[in-house]
Amino acid sequence: MEGRRQHWPSVGRVDEAQDVRTFIDSNADQWLAGLQEWLRIPSQSGDPALAGEVRRSAEWLATALREAGFPTVEVWETPGLPAVYAEWPADDAGAPVALVYGHHDVQPVEPLEQWTAPPYDPVVVDGRLLGRGAADDKGQVAMHLLGLRAHLAATGRSAPAATVKVLVEGEEESGSPHFVDLLRAQRERLRCDVVVVSDTGLWRADVPSTVIGLRGLVSCQLDLVARDVDLHSGSFGGAVLNPATALARMLATLHDESGHVAVPGFYDSVLEPGEEERAMTAALPYDEAQWLADAHSTVPAGEAGWSTLERVWVRPTAEVNGYWAGHTGAGTKTIIPREAHAKLSFRLVAAQEPDQVRAAVEAWAHAAAPAGATVTLTWEGDGVRPCATPLGTPALQALHRAMARAWGTDVLVTREGGSGPEADLQDVLEAPLVYLGVSLPDSREHAPNENVPVEMLLKGAESAAYFWSELAAQA
Amino acid sequence: MEGRRQHWPSVGRVDEAQDVRTFIDSNADQWLAGLQEWLRIPSQSGDPALAGEVRRSAEWLATALREAGFPTVEVWETPGLPAVYAEWPADDAGAPVALVYGHHDVQPVEPLEQWTAPPYDPVVVDGRLLGRGAADDKGQVAMHLLGLRAHLAATGRSAPAATVKVLVEGEEESGSPHFVDLLRAQRERLRCDVVVVSDTGLWRADVPSTVIGLRGLVSCQLDLVARDVDLHSGSFGGAVLNPATALARMLATLHDESGHVAVPGFYDSVLEPGEEERAMTAALPYDEAQWLADAHSTVPAGEAGWSTLERVWVRPTAEVNGYWAGHTGAGTKTIIPREAHAKLSFRLVAAQEPDQVRAAVEAWAHAAAPAGATVTLTWEGDGVRPCATPLGTPALQALHRAMARAWGTDVLVTREGGSGPEADLQDVLEAPLVYLGVSLPDSREHAPNENVPVEMLLKGAESAAYFWSELAAQA
Ligand SMILES: [Zn+2]
Ligand SMILES: [Zn+2]
Repeated sequence: MEGRRQHWPSVGRVDEAQDVRTFIDSNADQWLAGLQEWLRIPSQSGDPALAGEVRRSAEWLATALREAGFPTVEVWETPGLPAVYAEWPADDAGAPVALVYGHHDVQPVEPLEQWTAPPYDPVVVDGRLLGRGAADDKGQVAMHLLGLRAHLAATGRSAPAATVKVLVEGEEESGSPHFVDLLRAQRERLRCDVVVVSDTGLWRADVPSTVIGLRGLVSCQLDLVARDVDLHSGSFGGAVLNPATALARMLATLHDESGHVAVPGFYDSVLEPGEEERAMTAALPYDEAQWLADAHSTVPAGEAGWSTLERVWVRPTAEVNGYWAGHTGAGTKTIIPREAHAKLSFRLVAAQEPDQVRAAVEAWAHAAAPAGATVTLTWEGDGVRPCATPLGTPALQALHRAMARAWGTDVLVTREGGSGPEADLQDVLEAPLVYLGVSLPDSREHAPNENVPVEMLLKGAESAAYFWSELAAQA
Repeated sequence: MEGRRQHWPSVGRVDEAQDVRTFIDSNADQWLAGLQEWLRIPSQSGDPALAGEVRRSAEWLATALREAGFPTVEVWETPGLPAVYAEWPADDAGAPVALVYGHHDVQPVEPLEQWTAPPYDPVVVDGRLLGRGAADDKGQVAMHLLGLRAHLAATGRSAPAATVKVLVEGEEESGSPHFVDLLRAQRERLRCDVVVVSDTGLWRADVPSTVIGLRGLVSCQLDLVARDVDLHSGSFGGAVLNPATALARMLATLHDESGHVAVPGFYDSVLEPGEEERAMTAALPYDEAQWLADAHSTVPAGEAGWSTLERVWVRPTAEVNGYWAGHTGAGTKTIIPREAHAKLSFRLVAAQEPDQVRAAVEAWAHAAAPAGATVTLTWEGDGVRPCATPLGTPALQALHRAMARAWGTDVLVTREGGSGPEADLQDVLEAPLVYLGVSLPDSREHAPNENVPVEMLLKGAESAAYFWSELAAQA
């Protein structure tokens, strides 16, 4: 379709900042038309019937990367859906190597009737690009193509100042089931000095920020079994162990009265945020009432001594995700349940190791279980290690300088309370992670009317353009 | 069928005790043949397809009562299945009035393959009558017919020494859904000085005992609702109230470390057993290891300061019958549940009132619920009041003398931890309850191979025969 097949123009280098923005502004329309074409491909990785669309999306991106100038572009197959890999080496063999990470698959679009425009027919309304994938994550992947061309145009280079590798997976919205294997298999080709994750958001359109940490995760099912049959509470009630009560008493000891996790050893490896980070967190314009409203909650809760943002960003947690025991239907059934069960998860922060936390929880559970019952913990998978990028990391400082040039203001830091495939990038590639992400709090990722201001994508592209120079200048 | 339609013979009165037993022994075979005929009717009240059999059972009993000599016999309809009522006034208008209570419906028989003989083709094996209803409760109702005829024969009376009323319901195994309404409607005709419940058991074949108390019951569902949606534990975990955790912490405060119920005011009206009852309980031959095995438990548990039997007989309890919250399926779902739910029941002992306990639990729950969540308790029905018969009750002493004559040994007392329609008898009729029951701990009521020794039924009949004289002599 029109808007994509043209070659990227170039401008002669005069002033990098001016020329980057000039290039971006003069190419924005055509670039946006290309992105819209990509967004028309319903690449939902969660729907097996749309697997062909995810493949078409990968092919679209591969072609776009080739047209942007990447000398090496490959579609990488997995046992599931394909990723796209590209590589553009710097002329200078000693230049730093960066790997850009994103994903080209998208979330489902139901409920369709809540969209104000069709999710796969993207439009720009009031400056916002509206459509499934606009923010998460095709828009953020596409901004790198525009940024890299702007970098070349403004610097007059024929190759980027840093070696740029790009890895865009196709199963992120399905939990990245084959991603870590792909990383391990391609570890040598993916080798880099820094990973640039572009799948996150800004604090606010006028408050640029980058993510410097994600929490890790371990989760398990706890089974407390007292016997092989339910007992009649009339005949036995009062004289036998009730495992439902016993499990409740165990779960009540997960936290102390101050909201601290009371599992012995749980905090042993926790790195607390430094004064600089705490000050930056406190500097973020923040509305507690709005946060609570977003959380459908009426009161703050959690660990004493930490703000709400710190509780979800820099503090580990123990959460009961669910439980069940005995009678759960209508009316009364006067039984003493034979067993009780809970689903527990623990969010981790650097430098807690999943193995260490699992061992601490096992010890807690076996010490807390009453005589006369058997406790078993069944852990889910390997868990996810937490990610944290120290503020002094040179690549992070380079990114902050680049974004400060684009936004004209200082860049703050945030974290994310959740976990993602970023931990695999960190663990397999052993490189620091920095996050150039431009979605906004109201981008409605994973919901109807996903959107992102076009200007955020352009500022993201501008930041990327500066970043390659900043990164190379620092090396 | 043969064995039922004959008239009851009589013996001239010489010595009451000798003649009672003589009458019983000489009529046992024919009486047993009649009972076996009744047991062949599959009067399962829980199976709508067998409603006709329950009616047939009621008619069988009505005929048997008429043949035994009751001048008044009626089948009482209910909105469900019929009860049978009979009345035989004493000649002496001032004689005490007793109401015998039992039921003619039976439990289901599945799993059929575990029966050693067909459940509805009763046989006597090694002195035990085997079949559905043999012990619970047709055998125990039938023993009163034999006992009453023996009483008349041995005393030479044409009417019993006490006025004997009989009420045999047809929905006990279905929870007696219409029984209390029937009692209220027939309150005047059922008026009595004592209720003789024959639907319980002996401690052991050679350790005769009567029940002197049943626990009451109130039960509810507790709902703790924090918000209208589940939250992502990555985005919000650590900074919002988790109602699953909060409910566990509430349930952990239901009991203190000694196993006492920690609901303020819970014990306010509890009547503790006297020294005489505690001594009789301690005198019961008792094997704790066997009790625990029957409870599928490895360790005793419960309130400090009380024995296992006392814990289930004379102490009230708070039990968690079940709970549920959040994710209860396979694998991990990293949510903070929006709400959590529990099913609670409380066994009561005299003189706790359901209303008083409900109020105490409501107050406890509202005080224990955390800020930011709404707690609601939904109570099931009216609850059941506890029953207790003081040891000094004259009718109880009369029953103990009667049973002591039949067994030739002192009679002890037990209680039952559960609750039954007996509480309705106590409440509506405002009469003391005594329990002449002869099933044994291994009678397998409600299970395959239900059975009772024929000799226990005969000793029960013998006890009933003496009881009418003892009761009248005492008045
Ligand atoms: Zn994403
Ligand atoms: Zn019964």
